[in-house]
Amino acid sequence: MDERIQQQLNFILEADKLKNVIRRNYLIDDSRRENVAEHSWHSILLAQVFFEYAENKEELDLLHIVKLITIHDLVEIYAGDTFIFDEDGYMDKFERENDAAKKIFGLLPPDQGKEMYDLWLEFEQETTPNAIYACAIDKIMPVMLNTYSKGTSWREASISKENVYRTLKIIEKGPKKVFSLLHEFVKVASEKGNLSS
Amino acid sequence: MDERIQQQLNFILEADKLKNVIRRNYLIDDSRRENVAEHSWHSILLAQVFFEYAENKEELDLLHIVKLITIHDLVEIYAGDTFIFDEDGYMDKFERENDAAKKIFGLLPPDQGKEMYDLWLEFEQETTPNAIYACAIDKIMPVMLNTYSKGTSWREASISKENVYRTLKIIEKGPKKVFSLLHEFVKVASEKGNLSS
Repeated sequence: MDERIQQQLNFILEADKLKNVIRRNYLIDDSRRENVAEHSWHSILLAQVFFEYAENKEELDLLHIVKLITIHDLVEIYAGDTFIFDEDGYMDKFERENDAAKKIFGLLPPDQGKEMYDLWLEFEQETTPNAIYACAIDKIMPVMLNTYSKGTSWREASISKENVYRTLKIIEKGPKKVFSLLHEFVKVASEKGNLSS
Repeated sequence: MDERIQQQLNFILEADKLKNVIRRNYLIDDSRRENVAEHSWHSILLAQVFFEYAENKEELDLLHIVKLITIHDLVEIYAGDTFIFDEDGYMDKFERENDAAKKIFGLLPPDQGKEMYDLWLEFEQETTPNAIYACAIDKIMPVMLNTYSKGTSWREASISKENVYRTLKIIEKGPKKVFSLLHEFVKVASEKGNLSS
């Protein structure tokens, strides 16, 4: 096996660990918390299903968006999942995840590692049209799950409507239709008592 | 909420169940069996990392490949996962999965449901260049996990080198480099005793 493919193999094997990084939110059937790998897949699926709602398709590249979503959470293998409503955890999130990004993407051949690191950074900075779309999709996903499940992770942390809107501002920059769905979810979740008043 | 987005939402919520469909193979750390959603994510990642090895890139579309991999296993929500070495289970696999495909993709608006059904069928038929690449990647993934873990699912079923080659013929049609990796995996797995002789 040549060095290049050995490096790629090491990366793929290490990526397996993302299946054991656990997020706060539960599956819809409330049977267990979700892991980051399966969340990534679900977001990739949603990005495809909702792509028709992007108003700025001429600025977007769906393959690039999928790449952003596929790799952006890999840093959590070392940095762990930071609950989105954990303001303290967010203080040093970038630093922790930047170190983790260098470590995980550093397993790859340098050219490929740089490409993935750049994708990770683009997602984190939330400024390019592709990153804004990817991020809006990735952020609405757990809202959907918390709305249509018992919302256990929100109930556990007494999350309010205000927490959701303040923390998930990026969704407002995504497709209007997706943002209107956020209103719908908040309404349903409030009525069910998944969000505290 | 208009009918179209309600249908899309129903589909995405139903797709959550893929996280509870369990495959035979284990994670690399042998801690538990893998679920289908996280496997799909891992294959999407591998499809990107190994794309450079495709000899026929002018015939391939990586976004289309990612779409094929993202949705092809959704039928297992109703049809269950069929162990690749289960020859009896494979007898009626197409029929069971075709019914499941109509059901799951039937949740979507008709135009989008048809697009996904067609993607599913394309993957299953393994004849287009995109489907061959997607399928080779999807099939080498569990070989990699069984090689670099304790190979519990292979050991449980006494899988041999011959089983692997006979059952995974599609990998030979994919990139040469990926097929050469299959030889390497079989060699390593045999030496470790993960494959029976």
